[in-house]
Amino acid sequence: MVNRGLYVGRFQPFHKGHLGAVQNALQFVDELIVVIGSAQYSHNNHNPFTAGERLVMIQRAVLEAGLDSGKLWIVPVPDVHLHMLWVSAVEGYTPKFNIVFSNEPLTRRLFMEASYQVRDIPFFDRKIYMSTLVRKKMVQDDNWMELVPKSIAEFIGEIDGVNRVKALALTDKIS
Amino acid sequence: MVNRGLYVGRFQPFHKGHLGAVQNALQFVDELIVVIGSAQYSHNNHNPFTAGERLVMIQRAVLEAGLDSGKLWIVPVPDVHLHMLWVSAVEGYTPKFNIVFSNEPLTRRLFMEASYQVRDIPFFDRKIYMSTLVRKKMVQDDNWMELVPKSIAEFIGEIDGVNRVKALALTDKIS
Amino acid sequence: MVNRGLYVGRFQPFHKGHLGAVQNALQFVDELIVVIGSAQYSHNNHNPFTAGERLVMIQRAVLEAGLDSGKLWIVPVPDVHLHMLWVSAVEGYTPKFNIVFSNEPLTRRLFMEASYQVRDIPFFDRKIYMSTLVRKKMVQDDNWMELVPKSIAEFIGEIDGVNRVKALALTDKIS
Amino acid sequence: MVNRGLYVGRFQPFHKGHLGAVQNALQFVDELIVVIGSAQYSHNNHNPFTAGERLVMIQRAVLEAGLDSGKLWIVPVPDVHLHMLWVSAVEGYTPKFNIVFSNEPLTRRLFMEASYQVRDIPFFDRKIYMSTLVRKKMVQDDNWMELVPKSIAEFIGEIDGVNRVKALALTDKIS
Amino acid sequence: MVNRGLYVGRFQPFHKGHLGAVQNALQFVDELIVVIGSAQYSHNNHNPFTAGERLVMIQRAVLEAGLDSGKLWIVPVPDVHLHMLWVSAVEGYTPKFNIVFSNEPLTRRLFMEASYQVRDIPFFDRKIYMSTLVRKKMVQDDNWMELVPKSIAEFIGEIDGVNRVKALALTDKIS
Amino acid sequence: MVNRGLYVGRFQPFHKGHLGAVQNALQFVDELIVVIGSAQYSHNNHNPFTAGERLVMIQRAVLEAGLDSGKLWIVPVPDVHLHMLWVSAVEGYTPKFNIVFSNEPLTRRLFMEASYQVRDIPFFDRKIYMSTLVRKKMVQDDNWMELVPKSIAEFIGEIDGVNRVKALALTDKIS
Repeated sequence: MVNRGLYVGRFQPFHKGHLGAVQNALQFVDELIVVIGSAQYSHNNHNPFTAGERLVMIQRAVLEAGLDSGKLWIVPVPDVHLHMLWVSAVEGYTPKFNIVFSNEPLTRRLFMEASYQVRDIPFFDRKIYMSTLVRKKMVQDDNWMELVPKSIAEFIGEIDGVNRVKALALTDKIS
Repeated sequence: MVNRGLYVGRFQPFHKGHLGAVQNALQFVDELIVVIGSAQYSHNNHNPFTAGERLVMIQRAVLEAGLDSGKLWIVPVPDVHLHMLWVSAVEGYTPKFNIVFSNEPLTRRLFMEASYQVRDIPFFDRKIYMSTLVRKKMVQDDNWMELVPKSIAEFIGEIDGVNRVKALALTDKIS
Repeated sequence: MVNRGLYVGRFQPFHKGHLGAVQNALQFVDELIVVIGSAQYSHNNHNPFTAGERLVMIQRAVLEAGLDSGKLWIVPVPDVHLHMLWVSAVEGYTPKFNIVFSNEPLTRRLFMEASYQVRDIPFFDRKIYMSTLVRKKMVQDDNWMELVPKSIAEFIGEIDGVNRVKALALTDKIS
Repeated sequence: MVNRGLYVGRFQPFHKGHLGAVQNALQFVDELIVVIGSAQYSHNNHNPFTAGERLVMIQRAVLEAGLDSGKLWIVPVPDVHLHMLWVSAVEGYTPKFNIVFSNEPLTRRLFMEASYQVRDIPFFDRKIYMSTLVRKKMVQDDNWMELVPKSIAEFIGEIDGVNRVKALALTDKIS
Repeated sequence: MVNRGLYVGRFQPFHKGHLGAVQNALQFVDELIVVIGSAQYSHNNHNPFTAGERLVMIQRAVLEAGLDSGKLWIVPVPDVHLHMLWVSAVEGYTPKFNIVFSNEPLTRRLFMEASYQVRDIPFFDRKIYMSTLVRKKMVQDDNWMELVPKSIAEFIGEIDGVNRVKALALTDKIS
Repeated sequence: MVNRGLYVGRFQPFHKGHLGAVQNALQFVDELIVVIGSAQYSHNNHNPFTAGERLVMIQRAVLEAGLDSGKLWIVPVPDVHLHMLWVSAVEGYTPKFNIVFSNEPLTRRLFMEASYQVRDIPFFDRKIYMSTLVRKKMVQDDNWMELVPKSIAEFIGEIDGVNRVKALALTDKIS
């Protein structure tokens, strides 16, 4: 039986902390499922990038880092907003897994209530703050590029991503 | 014709103020419908408990208080998030009623716009603040138990509810 | 630990076969949860009656049959239409249960895949055909009343239910 | 107080029967609200045209027929699929009205249950069959144009509508 | 080919700034589509008025200002909350258009990403703040009437709108 | 610029015809996106398998056939049921693409209306009938295995898939 892990994030954008978490998790499992959460959202303040754009980011980062892509499943999963259904929704979109990697308190709680083994990710600052920081630095023309893999910085350039994040920072639209 | 009242709450958790409101309303009607609002939500900051857990809480509180359960209808109703549809949604999930008990300004307004008789609940501090307070005391290991019926404190213990509320207070997940 | 069963139906309307199933299930458990499925629907061909009307029907049938209402939980649950989430949705709306009573092949399969014990309901013709039959007899002014408990026939009269079912049989509206 | 009527259809497409119904209704009211129902749907077998396309069709037919457009409100309303909420949804999208024109059995029933006055539309064959017939003739290259106002036939030509209807008749996609 | 513009707002309520924007846009196009955004919402803090009420407001303001209503399409469009789908949703509810009038950063960005021409609205303070201001003045019994066309102030009086806005300012209900 | 194709299916299950279509498409593009459509559905008659299960099927078939997995993107996309939004939804979940491979009339029409280049798939019998046929043979204990790659037949065995399809063929549940 294959030993398969699950790692969930929104990856807005995927940064070096996420990459470190993937590399760490791969030491403990044969295969790792990377779930792109809140996949249906884009163009809002918490989620500037589409699922497709995030898919490309992760693929490029995996190539750049020389990871074995044969061990990774990268799967977008839309948010159902009913937390009591969320574990089942993740199970429906992914291959079977037996261990969950997460430092996020509610993610840990939900998978533990569903009887999964849950592991800490060592040396990993809580992810949302870092993605939040990347986006904040984008708005302020500060050096966000050092926080993400080089290939991702290039991709964000290709899609004019920084201007999208800046427009979102000014919007009145309710997301 | 039976004189039937309606009382709506989210009951996160059901506390002594809610119980007092039920007891008060029962003086004016033959039967009372207790609507568990926002029934589809759980495991988020405003709604830690599932509809099923809230159903058990109310049932136990009714037993503990010695109320006549034959006069009560306890009905979970999911939120439709379109307030112009909300009164119709409540009507669809419940037996017919002719009077609404509420101190909540919008609930009162919506039922009055739909031509229902609406009554104040005397001596009842606005409910959400109290449930909010119960949850806040849970997070702070303060004495939340004195705010809820004894049987509910026990039930929250059985389901490890305080740790769930604490996890929710720390989460990054967007609900 | 209480031994608690689950029994799911749409109850459009609740008929004598449903009542027999409830009575049968109560022989094997301390408490029984009766789930009113597809609770959000009404006024369509498969679902003429609202959840609230079905709640009243079941309550009256329980009284008429002299069942111990203290052993029953009657809970409306809206349909999520994603079968991979359905067991979790039912779990979220109900008290914990450990056994499921059903002859319906998919209901059985879904709860078995979720590791529940599932029991047959003996001497019970597949339910939807019977409710379908009751509605068909209503449209044809045939004797539908003998198929339902007397108190339910009366209630359907009170709400002019037969004319609603007849209007639905003629409608073009897409449900 | 203005005497305002309501007339609901899907108008897939708007044909001469619909136009006759509008003209008839205008004899009884000061203003008429024409609701474009199922507004969110398009490109499926029952609903080939978008709400925007149907809006243009009705506007052109009104001009062609020389009706007083100052007496008409043309309002797209998306379907909520919960019939118990449908009357409230229509009320939310429209100006206040006091009379409903319809021959459709469920539409009549829903508005009567909500205490509206409902009137028959004389000399009007049930609408869905006629729109269905127009679409069927399109697929068969039969003379559908004689069933719709001339300006609408032209508009359907402009948007290559017949080929869309033909593609839909062949599709496997589940709508 | 007709030169047709698009102008989107929530119009909660429609005020003199909106009217000025419409008048300005009409100088550049043959026809203007006024989209009533977030059409499904009402009775919440950001959206007190229904789509139907907003439709009446705009119609009255157009009459009061003596604009040519034959050049205007007023179309309610519900929000889909997935910004990557929003431009397509607007396209589905409206006649074809070729230019978008907006000062809102995300609206501009989304239509530019979809290759539309986007124009500034001169001398127009960002809309949401002004509608927000109107509602704030309503709550404070300050002079909100001077900010809206006279016919709209009258209409808000007819529907007891100020008391609705005040109730919403006090509510606990989660919208 | 990379030449990237798109190929959409529900893959219930993925069979040899699908595999042939993928192989054919790879002759014309550098990379191919395989969209698993209707991703949110499972356990119903048209969609017995979850998105996760279909993901595993395709991965195994790709390995078995010796295709270059570095040229493939396999992406689950949930159905939005509003065809006017569907192309935008697909665009949101996927990397940018410039050519669509499809024999399905509506899929072709929707992408052509959105100005994509659309290509026929040669020697490919319309897919849904074949998946329908596989499922029909499963129900009849006929030889379905010869229609799918060997590794997929094995996987369906691992997850007891035939019994799930048989249960679905007997169900009353409305999907």
